[in-house]
Amino acid sequence: MLSFNQKLINNCNEKNNRLCIGLDIDKEKLRIKTISYMQNFIKDIIDATISKCPVYKINFAFYEQLGFEGYKLLGKISEYIDGRALTIADAKRGDIGNSSKFYAKSVFETLNFDSITVAPYMGEDSIEPFCKYEDKGVFILCHTSNPGSENFQSKIIDNDELYISVAKLASKMNQNNNIGLVVGATKNNKMKKIREFSKSLPWLIPGVGFQGGSLKDSLIIGSSYNSLPIINVSRGIIYAGKGSIKDISDACDSYTKQIREFL
Amino acid sequence: MLSFNQKLINNCNEKNNRLCIGLDIDKEKLRIKTISYMQNFIKDIIDATISKCPVYKINFAFYEQLGFEGYKLLGKISEYIDGRALTIADAKRGDIGNSSKFYAKSVFETLNFDSITVAPYMGEDSIEPFCKYEDKGVFILCHTSNPGSENFQSKIIDNDELYISVAKLASKMNQNNNIGLVVGATKNNKMKKIREFSKSLPWLIPGVGFQGGSLKDSLIIGSSYNSLPIINVSRGIIYAGKGSIKDISDACDSYTKQIREFL
Repeated sequence: MLSFNQKLINNCNEKNNRLCIGLDIDKEKLRIKTISYMQNFIKDIIDATISKCPVYKINFAFYEQLGFEGYKLLGKISEYIDGRALTIADAKRGDIGNSSKFYAKSVFETLNFDSITVAPYMGEDSIEPFCKYEDKGVFILCHTSNPGSENFQSKIIDNDELYISVAKLASKMNQNNNIGLVVGATKNNKMKKIREFSKSLPWLIPGVGFQGGSLKDSLIIGSSYNSLPIINVSRGIIYAGKGSIKDISDACDSYTKQIREFL
Repeated sequence: MLSFNQKLINNCNEKNNRLCIGLDIDKEKLRIKTISYMQNFIKDIIDATISKCPVYKINFAFYEQLGFEGYKLLGKISEYIDGRALTIADAKRGDIGNSSKFYAKSVFETLNFDSITVAPYMGEDSIEPFCKYEDKGVFILCHTSNPGSENFQSKIIDNDELYISVAKLASKMNQNNNIGLVVGATKNNKMKKIREFSKSLPWLIPGVGFQGGSLKDSLIIGSSYNSLPIINVSRGIIYAGKGSIKDISDACDSYTKQIREFL
């Protein structure tokens, strides 16, 4: 059985890309009237981009607000992608071991996603049940791109920032070669330091595009130590131009071209 | 409009109790065959306990593993309780502001829960969208009862444990009188220190019963500074005796009796 991180490398190499499209469909903002229209819109986006895009990230918050029908749609998305790209359940789960076991089951088995984002506050035994699935990936929140990352993540513990402690624990736990980190595209010195401690762990990098992070720096720093940076772009693609499928496809092509230039 | 914390005090005083029953229904372990049987079992538990129990906590992991039908059941539970007790969505959410806004909408509006548990790792702007709902409650993970709480929560930052920093931020953010903390029933000196910094914030206290925390100490320390401790018991009630509704009702009575003795 291939480990998740190996599958991630293979998918990225096959499509010669490091792009992850965030399917953050804001139903109200996009004036989408029905769940079935939303489902078709998502299918159209996938159809227009999947030949180039190796990874899709689905933020659960956008779907859960729609109730059980939104939750049902999550399963439809992974079913539609059906192995043609890898999926990240951006759900930021984390609980005591027994509950995390059920969250892992819900995302990896019931909804059949390939990987998940998890919050590290509750520590090792809250993350471990996700890692037991060797072929599934676990992206641990390390340093996020929002202002609140300053509240706790950047504070010094054990002579280093808290996010460095998280990177160290993640490296230690990576026995099944299926752990990655969420590292926001922020200051270069922070990213360089995290890379030093996270070594070969792949990174999921939000914050490029609308949030102002540098694509080039994220790729270069993320690729050091022979590792893999996955660049997430959500609004920069979904809301490109006038929001037509042609605009979305063009934006995917544009990001893909830039990524290939820097690689 | 009453603030959530005031509603919590009122509910606890009216029922002269500080008990929170955790409706952690493990479908497989309880050999429950259908969602509809599970729904009836939950209704029976509520019917047998709601005259004494002021708060119910529903851990989302147990329901999400069942897919959209489990997600649908979450809404049915709050609908069935219908204001006769307060509900806590034990979902441990937390994301960048825009996504947290959608999680708040999903739990407070779509599923109509009275409160939620949130993870603090992403900081203030990840918690703030939940707090905007004045009549809804936000229990921030402070010090949890699992072994992994040692990984980060107990580390020293700014001359105090990380969980003290979380308690300080929670107190600062409590402008709408709707924030509480999750504080596991662990060592008394830790609980006392957190109470010193969290002052009047209510606590949701897991870890009593099966996990070995002291009910008496949790109540006494949790009540200091004129505050409110909510004692969560899940397995100790749901799996009491042979698991009949009579056993569950008796266990609820027994915890209620002990709580009233200590108050």
